[in-house]
Amino acid sequence: MAKKKKEAPLTGITVSKEDDFSGWYTELITKAELADIRYNIKGFVVYREWATITIKKMYAKYEKCMEDHGHLPLIMPSLIPESNFLLEADHVEGFAPEVFWVTEAGTSGDLPERLALRPTSETALYKMYALWIRSYKDLPYKRYQSCQIWRYEGKMTRPFFRGREFHWIEGHDVFATMEEAEAQVKEDMEMTYQMLQDEFGIPLIFFERPQWDKFSGAQKTFAADVLMGSGKVIQQPSTHLLGQNFSKPFEVKFIDKDGEEKYGYQTCYGPAISRIYGAMIAYLGDDNGLVLPFDLAPVQIIIIPILFKEKEDIVLDKAKEIIERLNSKYTVKIDDSDESPGSKFYYWELRGVPIRIEIGPRDLDKNQVVLVKRNDGAKFFVKDEELEKTIDDIANNYTKEIKEKSLVDFESQIECVTDKNAAIEAINKGKIVCCGFCSIDFDGELCAGEVEKDIGAFVRGTRVDEEKNKFDNCLICGKTAGCTVYIAKSY
Amino acid sequence: MAKKKKEAPLTGITVSKEDDFSGWYTELITKAELADIRYNIKGFVVYREWATITIKKMYAKYEKCMEDHGHLPLIMPSLIPESNFLLEADHVEGFAPEVFWVTEAGTSGDLPERLALRPTSETALYKMYALWIRSYKDLPYKRYQSCQIWRYEGKMTRPFFRGREFHWIEGHDVFATMEEAEAQVKEDMEMTYQMLQDEFGIPLIFFERPQWDKFSGAQKTFAADVLMGSGKVIQQPSTHLLGQNFSKPFEVKFIDKDGEEKYGYQTCYGPAISRIYGAMIAYLGDDNGLVLPFDLAPVQIIIIPILFKEKEDIVLDKAKEIIERLNSKYTVKIDDSDESPGSKFYYWELRGVPIRIEIGPRDLDKNQVVLVKRNDGAKFFVKDEELEKTIDDIANNYTKEIKEKSLVDFESQIECVTDKNAAIEAINKGKIVCCGFCSIDFDGELCAGEVEKDIGAFVRGTRVDEEKNKFDNCLICGKTAGCTVYIAKSY
Repeated sequence: MAKKKKEAPLTGITVSKEDDFSGWYTELITKAELADIRYNIKGFVVYREWATITIKKMYAKYEKCMEDHGHLPLIMPSLIPESNFLLEADHVEGFAPEVFWVTEAGTSGDLPERLALRPTSETALYKMYALWIRSYKDLPYKRYQSCQIWRYEGKMTRPFFRGREFHWIEGHDVFATMEEAEAQVKEDMEMTYQMLQDEFGIPLIFFERPQWDKFSGAQKTFAADVLMGSGKVIQQPSTHLLGQNFSKPFEVKFIDKDGEEKYGYQTCYGPAISRIYGAMIAYLGDDNGLVLPFDLAPVQIIIIPILFKEKEDIVLDKAKEIIERLNSKYTVKIDDSDESPGSKFYYWELRGVPIRIEIGPRDLDKNQVVLVKRNDGAKFFVKDEELEKTIDDIANNYTKEIKEKSLVDFESQIECVTDKNAAIEAINKGKIVCCGFCSIDFDGELCAGEVEKDIGAFVRGTRVDEEKNKFDNCLICGKTAGCTVYIAKSY
Repeated sequence: MAKKKKEAPLTGITVSKEDDFSGWYTELITKAELADIRYNIKGFVVYREWATITIKKMYAKYEKCMEDHGHLPLIMPSLIPESNFLLEADHVEGFAPEVFWVTEAGTSGDLPERLALRPTSETALYKMYALWIRSYKDLPYKRYQSCQIWRYEGKMTRPFFRGREFHWIEGHDVFATMEEAEAQVKEDMEMTYQMLQDEFGIPLIFFERPQWDKFSGAQKTFAADVLMGSGKVIQQPSTHLLGQNFSKPFEVKFIDKDGEEKYGYQTCYGPAISRIYGAMIAYLGDDNGLVLPFDLAPVQIIIIPILFKEKEDIVLDKAKEIIERLNSKYTVKIDDSDESPGSKFYYWELRGVPIRIEIGPRDLDKNQVVLVKRNDGAKFFVKDEELEKTIDDIANNYTKEIKEKSLVDFESQIECVTDKNAAIEAINKGKIVCCGFCSIDFDGELCAGEVEKDIGAFVRGTRVDEEKNKFDNCLICGKTAGCTVYIAKSY
C-alpha cells in the first residue's frame, strides 16, 4: 500500500505507514494539525479545526441516514444517577471500571448520590422510555442522539481511535416483537455499510461477537471490524440485541393490541464518529498524508498560483475568477501565501485536499490550468472552457476510486488456517486468521483465552455475511468446529 | 398579546400567557412535548424530539454565521483540570460556586486533581492558544465550538431558559490590538441581531453590563436582553472584552511585526442555543401553543384529510399527490390518524406548524384546498394550480410577519421615569424602566443594591444603541446622572 518515501519536505511525514504504522499515524495527526495531544488531562485530546470540519460533515451524513431510517433526534442529560446504573446487573458490572463520577458541586453542594458521566445512555434513556411508551401504537419507537461519552479507558489511548472522551451517535429502539428487533439489528448493519463503506471509503466485516465479548447487558452483539493496513483490526459501529434485558428492570412496557401489558424488545446501536474518523484517516491515508472522500474534505479544491513578479496580477485575477466559477458548488481556496509552490503542494497534500489547481503565466498563455488529483497523483492539463466539466467528473468519481482501491486490499488480508503454528505465522505476517472454532458461546471462552495467550490475537467472532462453517475442527481444542471464526490483533 | 382563551380542547393549553406566564410556559413545554422535567437529577431535563429538531436547525444557522464571520470550529475536551482554573483569579472566584467536579474514575481510579465539567472554556482553550499562536501572521485567531456546559445553578431552573446543563456555541478570538478586539465585540453584537432578530424573530436590546455584573475575568461585558411579554427580561448572548486579562496568565503571546513578543487581546462570545430556543418559544408562542419561524419548524406543512367513508381514497390520494409536489422544498407530513379533524387542528397548532392544508371531498369537487396560517389564523381557499405559488409566498413572508408583529410590541414595554415611586409602579405594571443613574462603574453598585431591594428589579446596564444620557439625576441617590440605565425583572 505504501510507496517508498520521497525526500521528505519539512511539512511532510517522515515515517512510512507500512514500516511503522503507529509512528506514521502520530506524525499524520500532528503535522496535519488534526488533534493536539498536549491537553493536560491524560487520555483527553483537542480536535483541531481540520479534523472538526470533517467530523461535522460525517455527523451530518450519519444523522440524515438515521433519520431516513425512521429515527428522531433527542438530547439527554450527560449525567446519570448511580441508582439508574444499578438496575441492570450485567451493565453495571461491565461499565463500573470505566465510569467517571461527579461527586461535588459548587462550594457547598452536596449531591444526593454520585452522578456518572455517561459511558452510554441506556440507563438514562430507558427510564424515560418507560414514561413515554404506552401503547403498541407508539411502536416501533426509534430515537437517536449525537453526543460525547466518557470512558475511563485502561488501554493506551490514541487520538480519535480510543480516548477517554469520544463523540458518537447512539440509536435506541423499542419493538413489540423479537423479530422486529432482530430486523433492526440487520438494518443497523446495513446503515453501517452504507455510511462507512459507501460514504467514508472504509471496508469492514460484521461479526457476531463471542458471548464473552458482548456489550454489557446485551443478548447478542454484532460489531464491525475495520481491517487496518497492518493486519490489525479496529472495532467500529456495533449494534446490540438487548431483547428484554433492559425493558424488564426499566419497565419499558406497552399495552398490545390484545389489551395485554407486555415488555418491549430493544436494540441499541453506537457508531462512534470520532473513532470512524480515526479509522478513515488511518485506512485511506498514505505517506504523503491524508486522503479524504471528496464530500468530507474541508477544502475540496486548492488553487496554487505560480507567481512571477511581472505577471502576478493576471495570475491572481485568473485564480479569483476560477473561485467565482466553482465556489457555488465546491469549497475552493487559494493559497497566496509567501511559501514556495513546492511547499504549498506538500502542505495541501498532507491535508488531503482532493484537487489542486496550478496556474502560472505559461498556463494562462495556453488558456489552460493544471489539475492534480490527491488520491492517485494524476495530472491533467485542462482547457479553460472545460474546467467545470472536468472538476465535476473528478468530484463524482473521486470517492468511488478511493473505495475501489481499498476494497482490493481488503480480502487479501485474510488467511485460512487449520493449525496453530500456521495461525501464529499468519498473524505475525500481519494477516487476519480464519479458522474453525468450537463455539462462540461461553463454552468457547477457554479456547479464546489460549488464542490470546499463544497467538497474541483475539477471536473477533463469526462473520455475519458467511452462512456456513467451512472447517471440521476447532483450531485450539480440536473438537468438532461449531463455527468459523476470525482471529486478529486489534487497536 | 394574548387572546382570551377559547374552550380548551384536551390537547391544548389551559392557561393564558398574559395571566400566568409561568403556568403557560410549563403547559407549553409539557403538552407540545418539548422537554421532560421528570429526569431524575435536579435541574437536568430531557430535550424531546420536537425541540431537538428545531435546536439543531438553530445550531446550523448560527454555526454558518460564525463561519461566515471567519471562525473555524474545533472540539475541546469537556473536562478542565482545577489547576487551569486557578490561573485567572476573578474567573475562579466567579465560577467556583457553579462548578460540578469529577473526583473519581473507575473502581480504583485516583485522579491526580479535581476535574471541572466545563462551565465555560476559557481556561481549557487558552492553554492551547498559547501553544498554537506564534506570530502576528496567525492573528486574528477566531475559533468556536458547539458544546454543552454545566453550571450548578442556585436559582430556580426552567427548561431551556436556565438549567444545570445547557447547549451553546462559544467563540474565542485573539487579536494583535485592543481596537480589533473592540471591533470584534461589535461584530458579535451584529451577529446576535442577525440571528436572534432576523432569523429567530426575537427582539432584543444590547446593554453594557454594570461592572458588578460582568463576566468573571472580563474587562467589559455586553449582553443582549430579550423583553418577554410579561415585562421581564432574559439575558441572551453576551460578548466579553477580555483585553489581556487572560492572555497574560495563560501566556497567549505572539511575535509582532516589529519582532517584539506581545500579549494578545481577547474576546469571547457565548450564544446559548438552548436558552435562545426557550426565549423564542416563550416570546413568539400564544395561547394555542408554539409559533415558530418558518425555517425552524420541524414540520412546515401539515395536511389534514377530511375523511368521509365513501370518498376516503380519493382524498388520501390527493394528499399524497400534494406531498409529492411540495416535499422537495418543504417538510410536509400528512396526519391520517384516527383523531377528529378538530383535534388534529389543535394538535398541530400547539406544535407551531406554520401551514395547515385541509382537503375534503367538497374541496376536491371545487378543485381547491384550504390553507390556514398558524401565526395569524388567516385562511385561504387555493385553486389547485396555484398551490405551489401560494405556499412559496407564505413561506417567504412568514418569518418576516412574525418579526414585525414582535417589533411592534417591543418599544411599548419601556417606560421612562424620574422618581422611584414611578419606577416601582412601572415595574409592577410589567414595564421595563428607563432612568438616570449615577454610574455603571463599581461606584454605582450601592445604588443598584437599592434598586434590587426597593424596586424588586435589576439594573441591566446602559443601552449600546443609545448615544447620550437623557436624564439629569440618578434615580436613587439624586447625584448627577452619569448615564441612562434600564431596570427590569429578569428570568
